[in-house]
Amino acid sequence: MPVSQKGLESYCVQVLCACGMDEPDAQCVAEALVNADMRGIHSHGLIRVEGYAQCLLSGGVRARACTTILTEGAGYASMDANGGMGIPASLRAMRLAMKKAEKTGISMVNVRSSHHHGACGYYTSQCANEGMIGLAMSTGDIIMAAAGGYVPAIGNNPFSYAFPAGKYGIVCYDIAMSAVAAGKISMAIEERRPIPPGWLLDLEGNPTTDPKQYDLGGALLPFGGYKGYGLSMFVEGLAGLLSGAAMLADIHAWNTDPGSCGNVGHCFIAIDPKKVAPLVDFPTRVEAMLEKLATGSTAPGVSRILFPGQLEMEREEEARANGLELSRATVAALQRVESITGVKLPAEIRHENITNKE
Amino acid sequence: MPVSQKGLESYCVQVLCACGMDEPDAQCVAEALVNADMRGIHSHGLIRVEGYAQCLLSGGVRARACTTILTEGAGYASMDANGGMGIPASLRAMRLAMKKAEKTGISMVNVRSSHHHGACGYYTSQCANEGMIGLAMSTGDIIMAAAGGYVPAIGNNPFSYAFPAGKYGIVCYDIAMSAVAAGKISMAIEERRPIPPGWLLDLEGNPTTDPKQYDLGGALLPFGGYKGYGLSMFVEGLAGLLSGAAMLADIHAWNTDPGSCGNVGHCFIAIDPKKVAPLVDFPTRVEAMLEKLATGSTAPGVSRILFPGQLEMEREEEARANGLELSRATVAALQRVESITGVKLPAEIRHENITNKE
Repeated sequence: MPVSQKGLESYCVQVLCACGMDEPDAQCVAEALVNADMRGIHSHGLIRVEGYAQCLLSGGVRARACTTILTEGAGYASMDANGGMGIPASLRAMRLAMKKAEKTGISMVNVRSSHHHGACGYYTSQCANEGMIGLAMSTGDIIMAAAGGYVPAIGNNPFSYAFPAGKYGIVCYDIAMSAVAAGKISMAIEERRPIPPGWLLDLEGNPTTDPKQYDLGGALLPFGGYKGYGLSMFVEGLAGLLSGAAMLADIHAWNTDPGSCGNVGHCFIAIDPKKVAPLVDFPTRVEAMLEKLATGSTAPGVSRILFPGQLEMEREEEARANGLELSRATVAALQRVESITGVKLPAEIRHENITNKE
Repeated sequence: MPVSQKGLESYCVQVLCACGMDEPDAQCVAEALVNADMRGIHSHGLIRVEGYAQCLLSGGVRARACTTILTEGAGYASMDANGGMGIPASLRAMRLAMKKAEKTGISMVNVRSSHHHGACGYYTSQCANEGMIGLAMSTGDIIMAAAGGYVPAIGNNPFSYAFPAGKYGIVCYDIAMSAVAAGKISMAIEERRPIPPGWLLDLEGNPTTDPKQYDLGGALLPFGGYKGYGLSMFVEGLAGLLSGAAMLADIHAWNTDPGSCGNVGHCFIAIDPKKVAPLVDFPTRVEAMLEKLATGSTAPGVSRILFPGQLEMEREEEARANGLELSRATVAALQRVESITGVKLPAEIRHENITNKE
């Protein structure tokens, strides 16, 4: 039975407030996580509440930290999340970048001393929905090998951009730099099936199809070899080094070490096409580009050519109209949250009501 | 026998002036192309002079076009290359972006009605050499399939970033969005050997190992599937749509259609770390990052972990000290340039002096 967006958000707010957060920030986090589930990105949805609750309760994340501005100019700012939650800090940073770009055309806001901030595309979407181009990126703890290396050396540092696309809504590209997300490896472990080659190296640096090597300390492989690795370094530079956040191995893994501040860094860039390109109607040109690309011949076995974020947008519309299905793994995590926080899981979210097999 | 950098530049200037260019712009182009050969990126080096000469002589590129500024603000500008050469226009745009970023922290300069501009890393390197972060990207004619498609639908749109890296010089990442550059396919055709799967689709959309399918109209595959495809769309958006240049199939292929203006677009972004991140010593942090990454264990068969552009920087230093070797394909192209332009190829560049087997 599908669950309503509002019901999930309100439950999530209750949990986060029980962990010490103020309601407005809790609401920010709830909306971002439920949005990810609505878009079918369950790895960045409510399943994260368990880890967030552990971080908040153990003091690794400061529940009521306020984001402060360290330095600022007309087109840039450096912010400090002061060890608080990543999602409210990131929303503030993206909005500040948008406000600045309205005046300066292009702007950049960095954040240090932050935490996991969910899906990067959540922030760039807000930009694109306001007619701007948005870029968002974040560091993460080391889980990926360097090109040519084999131990975990760098995060799989997510990167997103979004374009306003007129009648097609928005283009929202959101990727991590590993061949696959770590979540897919966890799923293969649960389902006791091998993984394809190209995803993971074992502890000796050999390619492996055994997903359990990941939990033993094996490294994810970058997508596209040195190309994905170099993009990961790009994100580490802009979101980590420039913000003054921790880098590489100094970033704590919040899911295995919830009691320490990860000191994650983010970077947000907003570009206002109306300002930087007044001679061009950018959204209309994006529309035209999508039309040209979508009408190309499809490869054997492919039904249509999708643009980045198209499927997620369709799922989101469906979920907004008809509610959403949570994955079994999410419900299991929320049941553990009930026992950690004492906040009773609403009946509609309980396991027996979940039909989704994922 | 190695040839001197200055000798090659001076020869290239002569050729371009014989095709109608003024000396200062010809010098710009010569330096950029020779630099690519020095860095071992022969596909973007002097081998391009043949095509450039054809475009200039047939009027597809206007030899003496001046770059003009269409709109401008403190942190951005839109430029028009007015159908002239891509390299001088791009140098002006990158320098303008750098000058702006010194004041505004981050800036963006777009260029329309331009032409092939060689290696994107040439421009970002200049930024990084001045202590700034540089981004450069360019559209190109359609040679790559959309993810899920099979006909050529989009360019393999190059993207580069560069970081200042203290005692390590600079990090310079420079990639195209296809699994491999078209040049590698041409080489396989010449050498009559098959290509690995994952590079190319044939005319029916099936993966092929026959490189000749490319010349018949087969499409390059994006690197990393939808991830590389989405990045290509990112570049198309920033460099093509935002600049007001042509998009997708409207971009003429300068190497097969030298008589038409390709209306290529570029985008340059400069970020001054001293301005946007005054609390951080960015180059020193980049140094530290490179050291941490380089000291990681290497995978079986790998001698060292390289950072983006490291090998190219080493080659450039070697070539600056001892001269450079041209590839056989480059010398063959320059011999054709001699017959097109009448500018005599210096004896040291002639075929019989070239030892490089490439």
